[in-house]
Amino acid sequence: MKGKVYLVGAGPGGAWLAPAAAFGLLRSADVVLYDKLVDKSLLSSAFKAEKVYVGKAPGAHALSQEEINELLIKYAKEGKVVVRLKGGDPFVLGRGDEECEALRAAGVECEVVPAPTSATAVPACAGIPVTRRNLANTFAVATGWAAEGSERPRYGEILKVVDTLVVLMGVTKVNEIVSDILKVRDVPAAAVTNGCTEEQKVVVARASKLPEVMVRNGVKPPAVLVFGEVVEWACKAGTVRDVVECSL
Amino acid sequence: MKGKVYLVGAGPGGAWLAPAAAFGLLRSADVVLYDKLVDKSLLSSAFKAEKVYVGKAPGAHALSQEEINELLIKYAKEGKVVVRLKGGDPFVLGRGDEECEALRAAGVECEVVPAPTSATAVPACAGIPVTRRNLANTFAVATGWAAEGSERPRYGEILKVVDTLVVLMGVTKVNEIVSDILKVRDVPAAAVTNGCTEEQKVVVARASKLPEVMVRNGVKPPAVLVFGEVVEWACKAGTVRDVVECSL
Repeated sequence: MKGKVYLVGAGPGGAWLAPAAAFGLLRSADVVLYDKLVDKSLLSSAFKAEKVYVGKAPGAHALSQEEINELLIKYAKEGKVVVRLKGGDPFVLGRGDEECEALRAAGVECEVVPAPTSATAVPACAGIPVTRRNLANTFAVATGWAAEGSERPRYGEILKVVDTLVVLMGVTKVNEIVSDILKVRDVPAAAVTNGCTEEQKVVVARASKLPEVMVRNGVKPPAVLVFGEVVEWACKAGTVRDVVECSL
Repeated sequence: MKGKVYLVGAGPGGAWLAPAAAFGLLRSADVVLYDKLVDKSLLSSAFKAEKVYVGKAPGAHALSQEEINELLIKYAKEGKVVVRLKGGDPFVLGRGDEECEALRAAGVECEVVPAPTSATAVPACAGIPVTRRNLANTFAVATGWAAEGSERPRYGEILKVVDTLVVLMGVTKVNEIVSDILKVRDVPAAAVTNGCTEEQKVVVARASKLPEVMVRNGVKPPAVLVFGEVVEWACKAGTVRDVVECSL
């Protein structure tokens, strides 16, 4: 019997955004390895599976990436159907590429099931489109954390050529990110916490004021940061929702 | 009775990638307005709904955007639960923002259900991650078509500051896009057609050769174009799949 690993995105927020295929795959799984930021109600679909919490969250890993890769390979080589359930989308700043690479190198079959990425879905649930006809033809997504040995994204430079910038994992680095952006211009900005859930909260400010507005409203990781004119557009058009402070 | 409009993303490719919530909303809908690029099997969930084809596809609209907005408002004002089912994600180059704005202006409640966007999901299903630790911390998404009066995205400039560039609706403009990119550098590139379906096909080449490789393999719209080192990484790591030609 040949094992196989499905790298399945759970999407951001609640299970309502998980891709349809996730439910069937969880149902058929022998083992599920799941992250911290995954809606736990999804696991109820995996009723015949062994459930293994691998707890990845920034700075607090239950298992290292290497240990996770090894576990995936071990289970698959035992002939098991393995679902690797990851928050957001596995291939958007999610290290799904590393898992896929390790599995391929070990001769294990691996398939990706994409999900809504928090980079676009969290702004959308907050009523902020990352694109907008005649205002934003382009958007970029960047990490707020750079891996050791990696260059930090040049946030300000990106906003010279791209209309909207979304930063994931950026809360603890927001001062650095904003000071980089302010070298270019003071754009409208938003931070969204608990996106795509009932507890969703949005703060809105010019980039220059964003850090203090975030502190005042107790914005803690994880949150999605959005920079660009689409934020102001959403406020004016009335599409933005769950705003706890707006200082534009 | 108060009507309401749900702007629901169907995701790219087959119904397997639609968000879980789409099925319940379609079940409860009185009316469904759907696009050309939506998996028709999703409509079987909408068994009590009137189904209205509005047929948007680049250059071949059954109804204009204004007519679609008016229909959404009309049905909602009749007290109906309306599902507006759109290919991909409604808020990523999908004009969902315009529909949402028109609905708000008309006093109609509107809620967005995000879906996997083809910008990230199509590369993922082809085995190409848009990000990769130590190789790609950032990615950008740009339209290949610019609306009248809009500036064209500066594709080459974007690739100076962002690691991966994904272009949607870029097939007919690929020569222009590539010549802009070549001002900066000749990056690895891929074009994916029928992404996230059984008919998925991938062609891979340096940007400079991409247009001729696309023509040789009959790549027609819609397709997703990916530019950046992640394409070469995926080829080397063996994660890329359904490749019909590779000229790296």
